[in-house]
Amino acid sequence: MTHPLFEKHRAKLEAALTAIHTRGYWAAYNEMPSPKTYGETAVDDGKKAFEAQLGQKFELNQPGTTAWLAPEKSPYGIELGVSYPVCDIEALITAGQAAMPGWQAAGVEGRTGLCIEMLDRLNAQSFELAHAVMMTTGQGWMMAFQAGSPHAQDRGLEAVTYAYREQKFVPAEATWEKPQGKNPPLVLKKHFEIVGRGVAVVVGCATFPTWNTYPGLFAALATGNAVIIKPHDNAVLPAAITVRTIRAVLSENGIDPNLVMLCVPDKRETTQALVTHFAVKSVDFTGGNAFGQWLIDHCRQAQVYAELAGVNNIVIDSTDAYKPMLRNLAFTLSLYSGQMCTTSQALFVPALGIDTEDGHKSYDEVCADLARALESFLAKPEVACAVLGAVQSTDTLERIALADSGQLGKVLLTSKKLDNPEFPKAAVRTPVLLACDAADESAYMQERFGPISFVVRCALSERLVGTHGALTAGIYSTRPEVVDAMTAATCRSKVALSINLTGGVFVNQSSAFSDYHGSGGNPAANASYANSAFVANRFCVIQRRYHV
Amino acid sequence: MTHPLFEKHRAKLEAALTAIHTRGYWAAYNEMPSPKTYGETAVDDGKKAFEAQLGQKFELNQPGTTAWLAPEKSPYGIELGVSYPVCDIEALITAGQAAMPGWQAAGVEGRTGLCIEMLDRLNAQSFELAHAVMMTTGQGWMMAFQAGSPHAQDRGLEAVTYAYREQKFVPAEATWEKPQGKNPPLVLKKHFEIVGRGVAVVVGCATFPTWNTYPGLFAALATGNAVIIKPHDNAVLPAAITVRTIRAVLSENGIDPNLVMLCVPDKRETTQALVTHFAVKSVDFTGGNAFGQWLIDHCRQAQVYAELAGVNNIVIDSTDAYKPMLRNLAFTLSLYSGQMCTTSQALFVPALGIDTEDGHKSYDEVCADLARALESFLAKPEVACAVLGAVQSTDTLERIALADSGQLGKVLLTSKKLDNPEFPKAAVRTPVLLACDAADESAYMQERFGPISFVVRCALSERLVGTHGALTAGIYSTRPEVVDAMTAATCRSKVALSINLTGGVFVNQSSAFSDYHGSGGNPAANASYANSAFVANRFCVIQRRYHV
Repeated sequence: MTHPLFEKHRAKLEAALTAIHTRGYWAAYNEMPSPKTYGETAVDDGKKAFEAQLGQKFELNQPGTTAWLAPEKSPYGIELGVSYPVCDIEALITAGQAAMPGWQAAGVEGRTGLCIEMLDRLNAQSFELAHAVMMTTGQGWMMAFQAGSPHAQDRGLEAVTYAYREQKFVPAEATWEKPQGKNPPLVLKKHFEIVGRGVAVVVGCATFPTWNTYPGLFAALATGNAVIIKPHDNAVLPAAITVRTIRAVLSENGIDPNLVMLCVPDKRETTQALVTHFAVKSVDFTGGNAFGQWLIDHCRQAQVYAELAGVNNIVIDSTDAYKPMLRNLAFTLSLYSGQMCTTSQALFVPALGIDTEDGHKSYDEVCADLARALESFLAKPEVACAVLGAVQSTDTLERIALADSGQLGKVLLTSKKLDNPEFPKAAVRTPVLLACDAADESAYMQERFGPISFVVRCALSERLVGTHGALTAGIYSTRPEVVDAMTAATCRSKVALSINLTGGVFVNQSSAFSDYHGSGGNPAANASYANSAFVANRFCVIQRRYHV
Repeated sequence: MTHPLFEKHRAKLEAALTAIHTRGYWAAYNEMPSPKTYGETAVDDGKKAFEAQLGQKFELNQPGTTAWLAPEKSPYGIELGVSYPVCDIEALITAGQAAMPGWQAAGVEGRTGLCIEMLDRLNAQSFELAHAVMMTTGQGWMMAFQAGSPHAQDRGLEAVTYAYREQKFVPAEATWEKPQGKNPPLVLKKHFEIVGRGVAVVVGCATFPTWNTYPGLFAALATGNAVIIKPHDNAVLPAAITVRTIRAVLSENGIDPNLVMLCVPDKRETTQALVTHFAVKSVDFTGGNAFGQWLIDHCRQAQVYAELAGVNNIVIDSTDAYKPMLRNLAFTLSLYSGQMCTTSQALFVPALGIDTEDGHKSYDEVCADLARALESFLAKPEVACAVLGAVQSTDTLERIALADSGQLGKVLLTSKKLDNPEFPKAAVRTPVLLACDAADESAYMQERFGPISFVVRCALSERLVGTHGALTAGIYSTRPEVVDAMTAATCRSKVALSINLTGGVFVNQSSAFSDYHGSGGNPAANASYANSAFVANRFCVIQRRYHV
């Protein structure tokens, strides 16, 4: 009766529905690059598939193709040379609109089944996607595999699951029978149609071209909309592979593939015309505050779901696990050279120091010990290169140089340039750690994207989040009253809190189906992945009624 | 274990949860003013309670009271003279913020139980509220009772029910246990706090001061927010009674009553300062497009849920129940002198006429027959006065005069002034019916609020809704292909459709728990009562996590 792909994926969907309700650990896609899961030849096949695209035209058979563009430069210094179709945006929008009725007709279960099929097919390409993510973003290999493939796919499935829950709650039809005392009842038959709002645009970022794109892509798609992905011009390939696979799944199942398209604009004005087009009804965005705010101000015809930048922070009050705490922080500050929207930037340490199981540590000792923990964690070059990856943009290199110069605070640890033997041209940098006073707000109270962190002599965390926003906050304390006060402060400023993380979980990591990414309630993001609010307004219910 | 008021109302909530999922007929509050339901003395008690307020100060004990204002003029011409406290908006906002933590601490079940208790208490005041609604809006008595009391209370309960469903889906806590192969698993304990976004403002309208206010009021309240109600300055009393009752319920249950407050501003600038205040996080509005669009443009710090004006229309293609159709239309066009956001304004009739069970009727015959049906329906003065009520504003009287003058189209039926023996000063007017051509778009393609309708010689319905929005559309046709085409058109233009209504259900009526009021997808309203999207973004989930 239902769509065969819905039946095929029913067990996975049901497990995902349980997961979003219980929020314990669950994953649909294996984060370990295991041959048992991905096949004995997956590593080689993925690498070959990636390499076969280099220097080639990436054919998508989209309407309105007028030119080809190869905009990407790899942070690892290799030549990419993949060129993508530049398409007329009116042609894309018209084609997307034309594809929507067939997609609507597939119904909630058809759309859900097809979306999960797409995710499974992308999962089978995880190694190819990992190479594409690694080489365009500068992520280390393991991170590119995990965040770029299974974790992104899980985030996509999470959005599909929320979308299914909200749509499924709407009955297809109802009989309305109103008693009229001794007279016969009034009886109406009612039908409720779920209709997508219109063409959706998903604007990707330079650092997580799949992880930050899949939630909006799949939320919009599952709720009945056509989607145009506008990737960052330095991270097109992961989006292009995604679009090609989705188009293939659509075609194979009798749906117009123009439901999902790639937009590689030749100039900034084209992007602006696209996102402000009256037919575009939602815009998902991840990236910097300037363009994010521009979108919120100008895309008045659309719902805008924006993940922007914030100043993430950690309060260090006291600990009974001093060395594990320092190791945990060293990993957080180093991972992908701090180029995560969840990386901590400001670490607040009391001017009078902190109590630890090793006795009292002065503010200066904490600074010095954290610097040493970073040096020691990154001492082996092969570990350092794997964890740090490469710096994605020259802007970040400039910010590192500025921090190193001492103009923003006292330099506790200088950034070092490392050589990556495998990629001699890669821009590899270790983190720079600065010390400053709480009063030096101009230094630490704005986001300085990249491996730049401040150990701030005792200030308040709450005002920082309220004013500038944050995606993550942390607290280290052995005193329950301090943890309670920090909990209350994060509830007021609406940011997620990690408490005393000293083991294998890090403040900058959020886990699909369990951790909300962004609260939607502070300036760092006006939406959260993934919750009901992320999906519920992407569709309308259109009813009709008549006497029976 | 749970809140006693949650236990008290659990059965009602569970029935409401079933109702929003099945969308058959269901009501929590009796729409018949029956002594069995409301008590033998309810009629007298309600009237006395209403009359006792006339000419008096309406004390609410709100903070920052600086003056008293009596702004209302009754469309029935009676003296009201109730004066309300004018309060400093900073004092209101500060008090609302201060009341929120205690409300948050009540938890989802506590808030839900208290909200239903408030609705039950308002239900017990249904006759008092009906008088207040009737005398401030000009509605007829029965409509004021039904729409002003039980139907409004049902819409409020519907919002509470959706809010409960979304909040209850978020677990209070979870244990996250991630396997680590042969090593011990990573284990985190996680807590999820539901936190209201902040102070909510609900801006009421002049015609339905409870029905259009309760959805936003109870959606915001149930999701953990403080609410300030800013009623229309001619329909304050129903909101003031509501606020006083809610404050009493809060106080009796140990919650700061300043969670819900009334704002009667002494000037327009005060309203503008209120709704654009940085601490105001949501604005619910019902009313005209000019101020509604101003709110959407200026309240950038808040979520705006706006029910605006549209051009509702009906396509008449053919029918097998000609007289019942005309009677149904006559009632729709007459009820409350067309002062409903759901009243049909444009009736499209083919230039070549329509087929009926009585043979073919020309366009002119349909026009004449509809005019006669209106006259006949309103022939008895006591019926006419009961159905028409009184005209709420002088603007509407001016629009009627303009239509009567023939400048907007050929006058098929002139509006008549009727005397209401009970209220000699009441402004009672019968509907004016005009004929025009499809090309006369400037006449019928803008909302002309009030008892003014056009029989349009054959145009398309779809473009009208897409451009100007609509809350309702209707079709009369015996041909399935015409009904299908209209269904497809309403799915594209995103408006609810009533098909061949010829009995005791009217296109301008929407039933709580079954009919969506507004789709949220066309210019007449950017939100729908009541669905997940109406509640899901009014709260955030703030998580914290730590190792176990």
